[in-house]
Amino acid sequence: MDATTRIEKALEAAIERAEVPESPPKLAAAIRYAVFPGGARIRPRLCLAVAAACGDDHPHLTEAAAASIEMLHCASLVHDDLPCFDDAATRRGKISVHKAYSEAQAVLVGDALIVMAFEALGRGAALVPARLPGLITTIARSTGMPNGIIAGQAWESEPNVSLSAYHKAKTGSLFAAATVAGALAAGAEPDRWRLLGERIGEAYQVADDIHDLMSKSEETGKPSGQDAMHGRPSATAELGYDGAVARLQDLLSQAIQSIPPCPGAAELRGVIMAASKAFVPKGIAQRAA
Amino acid sequence: MDATTRIEKALEAAIERAEVPESPPKLAAAIRYAVFPGGARIRPRLCLAVAAACGDDHPHLTEAAAASIEMLHCASLVHDDLPCFDDAATRRGKISVHKAYSEAQAVLVGDALIVMAFEALGRGAALVPARLPGLITTIARSTGMPNGIIAGQAWESEPNVSLSAYHKAKTGSLFAAATVAGALAAGAEPDRWRLLGERIGEAYQVADDIHDLMSKSEETGKPSGQDAMHGRPSATAELGYDGAVARLQDLLSQAIQSIPPCPGAAELRGVIMAASKAFVPKGIAQRAA
Repeated sequence: MDATTRIEKALEAAIERAEVPESPPKLAAAIRYAVFPGGARIRPRLCLAVAAACGDDHPHLTEAAAASIEMLHCASLVHDDLPCFDDAATRRGKISVHKAYSEAQAVLVGDALIVMAFEALGRGAALVPARLPGLITTIARSTGMPNGIIAGQAWESEPNVSLSAYHKAKTGSLFAAATVAGALAAGAEPDRWRLLGERIGEAYQVADDIHDLMSKSEETGKPSGQDAMHGRPSATAELGYDGAVARLQDLLSQAIQSIPPCPGAAELRGVIMAASKAFVPKGIAQRAA
Repeated sequence: MDATTRIEKALEAAIERAEVPESPPKLAAAIRYAVFPGGARIRPRLCLAVAAACGDDHPHLTEAAAASIEMLHCASLVHDDLPCFDDAATRRGKISVHKAYSEAQAVLVGDALIVMAFEALGRGAALVPARLPGLITTIARSTGMPNGIIAGQAWESEPNVSLSAYHKAKTGSLFAAATVAGALAAGAEPDRWRLLGERIGEAYQVADDIHDLMSKSEETGKPSGQDAMHGRPSATAELGYDGAVARLQDLLSQAIQSIPPCPGAAELRGVIMAASKAFVPKGIAQRAA
């Protein structure tokens, strides 16, 4: 089964559990709306790729970890779009959840997806429970306080922020969870995979800052100039366009160099380059390779 | 160590993890504000009492489960108080989180507490990982979709709701998690403990409906008449005052009768009666005993 099929099937299995006759129907529909159709699914792809490089001896657990991380990502998008944060009217080229349903439903969609993410891990590890504590704590740390994506979002309300700490928490942390969880799901030593995720995550955030500066809202599916509008720390504001592009190239090089020696290293490099192309402004990815 | 000390220490240990120098300070402060000082801590007390009745051979895991359930409860209070739901200005006799901090911080407090709840379980089960899948799925099911407290909150936005299904999800589910998780943490067979939690949870909700109808806001620490104001299903609206009191007595009797034969049964009955007194309107609990 290819990565796309594995990811979409795992997400479908998780979301279907919320769609039974006794479910509150609006919330069930809003959860599906928030998860399908997805974006590039870069984080779960990375998780699957690392697990494959480590042998992937329990593919069901790998898929649960990948789906868990993607559901947490979707939850963060729905909550970040709320009126008290970005007040975004669109996301992934369609109406944002709180505009399509309601603010109340959007809060509950995010809450439910966070819970479903951990539930998916619990179910996926039934046959290999010894791997579950590491997966739970890794993914929780990358999501919550003090260094996860929720902490990253909280930094936007603070007067003094370091760009690197902010990016590391807001985006890097969940990418790091993707690579580390891929190794953990396959029973491999996880720590040597952290740097890869962190660097790709930082690269993704810098690329997003560049996109935010340059692109029109038709291209990204969300209103442009959000960072400047909300006074958020951004790589382009701090480093300028050229500085941000140089930083992005440097981060991608570091990511690829960080791949530990392993049977699937060449294949993994290919997956990373392909994923990079999905988010790096045209013409930059090639130079980093 | 008594139950109160065990619960507060376990919560303190979890919350402290969010209070390191690299934490976003506003969110760290708001999380502590949401958890301390607590209410009656009925759910974690119930969890500890059931674990004790089952031998409590891993007290550290029991405490993690109890703290996890209480953090999920606190998360639900913070999100339920948001302007898009109850728009409550006070909670537990003090200013609600979104009023004391901001709506954005309140959304993040709830999100962070949900994540911290699962993280606490993951840490607590490091030495007994075989118990973790059951704990994660039990607590997740009681929190999320389709039957957990998040689903219960979602039912408030639906036009047609059964009172019993609504109460079961909105309140009963997390009480059921408390008893079932207490058994799971102690390595005991969990299913025979579910009915106890469900009945206590339903009783608590009916008692809350009676309080809501009768009490002044000084007594409960939150504005009274919320249910009627928000058009929520309530036992007093459906059954009248006398009918609701009769239902409450019946639920408490069923709860006590459901306690399975076990070494600590008498002690557990005592804990339940004591906990009941904390939430049942005066004069009703005695008649149920």
